[in-house]
Amino acid sequence: MPEYKAPIADIRFVLEEYLEVSRYAALQGFDGLDADDIAALLEGAARICEGVAQPLNRVGDEVGCRFRDGEVTTPPGFREAYRAFAEGGWIGLALDSRYGGKGLPGVLSEAVYEVLSGANMAFSGYIELSEAVFTAIHAAGSEEQKRLYLGKLSGGEWTGAMHLTEPQAGSDLRLVRTRAEPQADGTYRITGSKTFITNAEHDLAPNIVNLVLARISGAPDGGGGLSLFIVPKYLPDENDEPGERNAVRCLSIEHKMGLRAAPTGVIAYDGATGFLVGEPNRGLAAMFVMVNDARLGVALQGLSIAEAAYQNAAAYAKERLQGRPVAGVPGGNRDAVPIVDHPDVRRMLLVMRSFTEGARALGLWVALQIDLSKRAADPAERARADRLVALLTPVIKAHFTDGGFEVADLAIQCFGGYGYIRETGIEQFLRDVRITRIYEGTNGIQALDLVRRKLTLDDGAALAEFLALVADDIAAARAIPALESEAAAVARALSDAQEAADWMRGRLPEGLLDPAGGATDFLRLFGLLAMGWTWLRVLVITERRSARRPEGDRTMRAKQMTGRFYILRMLPETDMLKRRATMGAADLMALAAEDF
Amino acid sequence: MPEYKAPIADIRFVLEEYLEVSRYAALQGFDGLDADDIAALLEGAARICEGVAQPLNRVGDEVGCRFRDGEVTTPPGFREAYRAFAEGGWIGLALDSRYGGKGLPGVLSEAVYEVLSGANMAFSGYIELSEAVFTAIHAAGSEEQKRLYLGKLSGGEWTGAMHLTEPQAGSDLRLVRTRAEPQADGTYRITGSKTFITNAEHDLAPNIVNLVLARISGAPDGGGGLSLFIVPKYLPDENDEPGERNAVRCLSIEHKMGLRAAPTGVIAYDGATGFLVGEPNRGLAAMFVMVNDARLGVALQGLSIAEAAYQNAAAYAKERLQGRPVAGVPGGNRDAVPIVDHPDVRRMLLVMRSFTEGARALGLWVALQIDLSKRAADPAERARADRLVALLTPVIKAHFTDGGFEVADLAIQCFGGYGYIRETGIEQFLRDVRITRIYEGTNGIQALDLVRRKLTLDDGAALAEFLALVADDIAAARAIPALESEAAAVARALSDAQEAADWMRGRLPEGLLDPAGGATDFLRLFGLLAMGWTWLRVLVITERRSARRPEGDRTMRAKQMTGRFYILRMLPETDMLKRRATMGAADLMALAAEDF
Repeated sequence: MPEYKAPIADIRFVLEEYLEVSRYAALQGFDGLDADDIAALLEGAARICEGVAQPLNRVGDEVGCRFRDGEVTTPPGFREAYRAFAEGGWIGLALDSRYGGKGLPGVLSEAVYEVLSGANMAFSGYIELSEAVFTAIHAAGSEEQKRLYLGKLSGGEWTGAMHLTEPQAGSDLRLVRTRAEPQADGTYRITGSKTFITNAEHDLAPNIVNLVLARISGAPDGGGGLSLFIVPKYLPDENDEPGERNAVRCLSIEHKMGLRAAPTGVIAYDGATGFLVGEPNRGLAAMFVMVNDARLGVALQGLSIAEAAYQNAAAYAKERLQGRPVAGVPGGNRDAVPIVDHPDVRRMLLVMRSFTEGARALGLWVALQIDLSKRAADPAERARADRLVALLTPVIKAHFTDGGFEVADLAIQCFGGYGYIRETGIEQFLRDVRITRIYEGTNGIQALDLVRRKLTLDDGAALAEFLALVADDIAAARAIPALESEAAAVARALSDAQEAADWMRGRLPEGLLDPAGGATDFLRLFGLLAMGWTWLRVLVITERRSARRPEGDRTMRAKQMTGRFYILRMLPETDMLKRRATMGAADLMALAAEDF
Repeated sequence: MPEYKAPIADIRFVLEEYLEVSRYAALQGFDGLDADDIAALLEGAARICEGVAQPLNRVGDEVGCRFRDGEVTTPPGFREAYRAFAEGGWIGLALDSRYGGKGLPGVLSEAVYEVLSGANMAFSGYIELSEAVFTAIHAAGSEEQKRLYLGKLSGGEWTGAMHLTEPQAGSDLRLVRTRAEPQADGTYRITGSKTFITNAEHDLAPNIVNLVLARISGAPDGGGGLSLFIVPKYLPDENDEPGERNAVRCLSIEHKMGLRAAPTGVIAYDGATGFLVGEPNRGLAAMFVMVNDARLGVALQGLSIAEAAYQNAAAYAKERLQGRPVAGVPGGNRDAVPIVDHPDVRRMLLVMRSFTEGARALGLWVALQIDLSKRAADPAERARADRLVALLTPVIKAHFTDGGFEVADLAIQCFGGYGYIRETGIEQFLRDVRITRIYEGTNGIQALDLVRRKLTLDDGAALAEFLALVADDIAAARAIPALESEAAAVARALSDAQEAADWMRGRLPEGLLDPAGGATDFLRLFGLLAMGWTWLRVLVITERRSARRPEGDRTMRAKQMTGRFYILRMLPETDMLKRRATMGAADLMALAAEDF
């Protein structure tokens, strides 16, 4: 059975020393929060996530959700756990306090989310989707809708689900066919069906607030004809309690590779009653209000599984005895040494750890930028933060989920045969995290978003600002003699990224073909740069700390070595990625489609 | 449900045009085989693999093996399928014809094995393990043992299993504790237990020939004290039929990530009767007789899953409509184009296909070298082939299984959400192939074998011969103007490999620490070089063919483009790998073990 300990010390390092959140005390939600409050929040989250959510992670996978007669039964223990989270106030941490949210900074809420997802990723989705639906209704709903639904969602009384995908409309939502027929009373009759819908039917709560993308009769084809509707499982009665059963039904749930405790179903609307959210034909825009939040959430799922997988692999590597000591490694005449003493196992552990710690610092930095984009006093600062978030969101969504998968895979390898059997629970990490590279926009879609929209955002201002930020931090690191090689390595990655980005922008006017051919390699290059930049900033902090305390402390020394490993071992890949990203698409398109 | 078509055309291309097996007519087993014979064999294999084995691949995964009261029931249909393969003469294709084998060249048998494993990897193991046990007894057993067991194994009447791993002895077999007590009648009483033993208990055949690694009482500790024993499930009676039940029992079987139709169990020996194979304390050597064959077999499993995954991804990409046409791609005003028209999907498909076709040519080249090492008339040619096989075996075992996993993963990505659900069967490829990177020596162990033993084999002769071979082929390709860039790209990879190999050999006298730190990166570098070299040789053939037939043929043009893609897109990674492989292990070992 896998273990999981919330990585509170490292989260606190990121919040307090890397992000210095105390500097933002003037911002709403940050005011009055001190280090003790943050520590208490994280410790509370650790207690409930480790004590309540994590012990259900295995049973969630082994038993999964059961479907019968249109109803989904969640795995044993999920109902009680959900109630504990709702009653403990762990839903809606960063949501608007006027509607029952706790009004905390998003960066704190995301830190807690990492812990929740690391403890039990499938379980975390029930809370995350409710918060996403809250956010969409909060942004686009009427006052009456807000009054009726937001408190129920933020309190966990009801849960939420997003209904987008249809069999013919996955990455391409323009093709959505579900119809909405206006009724005399101002409601709509929703007809059609959708697939791959998560948490739209379950037994955790007495009602489910479904947000459904559909096309009003007569609306234009394409994305510009889609509207967003609230289609509650039970129509609220005059007391705002679940009343009449609505004609939205789950027809079946999928048997999936992983994430089995989250039901993913086929949903049919048979003249269901829907309530329009916001303007007609503006449904995509209403959904995309929360796209940055949602993609950050998925990115953090990648990180969270990486952390859980690393913890288990490291523990196993220290206890599993196998193989002779390698010359130069202490071990003397022992028959066999712990496998952590083998350089190749170390390499795997350091790849895992350096990804995980770097992704945490970068991910929470992005979360902080989201806070700044909403809450900073200066409109220019808000706009700048918003641009940086827009630029980096597809990067971290894809890079962290690819990285989470890679780390889960390395954990299996560290465990050897024991990693391949279900009993140890290690292979579950890989199966669970695999979906994060697909949902909320496949990682290929993220790459296209990066090269097509984000590089040219505000005429390239977002890109230029980010690259300038990296350049400034390289200059700062160069002032520290101990970081000479590391600063130089990040500078090379920066120059590779700049070169590839220039190439992309130069090609875009001729069309998307060439940029699209290099998009995935470019995104990875950008992800490595962002991670390397983050580590370089962390190293500046640890260097300053060891200058103050030359005797050093163990945790900071470990962080230094981990960061150096990342920068010196991982970043050299950028040169190859730059070359691949800028090869164009001619060789990709040379074969006729029918020759594949 | 996934489809699978045996890639006969490409296998024939490799055998007839790439390897030109007709040139070896003087060798035993190759004599009298013409292209028609080969085609007939492959078509027969395709029929039974596609018609009998492949349709059981899903049920094998869904139902798996069941364990009850010490007995394993294979999934529905497996018994009948196994009988069809045995009766059809598909077991022991390359085994000694004096003992019931078909005496065919190993290269042909391996080509058939790719098809069998592509159709149903779990099923293929029942045949492969019987052949492995045959090989070990054939090499080290007594005449009586050969007479008694080999015909039963090669005819498929009985099956075989290899018992090596124990809970404390996985990668490190020196730690095996199972004991063997000599008896007055010359037999041994075997006591102990083992874990992760495949196919040691099932219902496909009335008897199982277990080969068990154990330590004779009083034998030295370590690997030099291990002996090999035949421990049949039923002791053969005077008519060579299954007689008394032996005290070797399956206590349980594992629930695994994949390969669920192959039982992997905990085995206990409670004073079981064992028959010594070969000399006492020479058990490891007797096992390692077949290590090249077995690792090639696992490598081909990686290839076979890659082929199956590619076929399904390519078919889906041509039929799934999603997304606007990218500028420059035909598609006109259509709402949505097949996703094969998107450059990033093409990129994935070409990574998959170029790996698969390249690995097939390289894998069968190694199989041919195994044949030459056993059957060539000239002892020097035999020795040279043997060295090349020894050098390349760890490379292809690790590189093909890593590649097979990567291709299976890309297939999921091409399918998007449909790749994540069990119904389509795509995610099964990934779960099944994952074990190939662990068993028959983890890929980390392969990397260590390469840098520790193979680089210095015969004082470096194996390495020098291989690199000279590559250099010669680069020179030949350079004579063809159309291959200038490709030859140059392979030359760069060669120089990276040479440089890294020199570094490794230079460090080895100081100990294994630094080479071990770079071993995995070095193996990947070597794998890319071997694949690039193979593709370059293939391109020379296709260039000659198009010179003869300038109008060209479609298959050859597709092969050219696929090979160019591989060489120009994949090989640039070698520069980074060289840098990583030669960084030494200082940064890996800097952290104290307890700080992980």
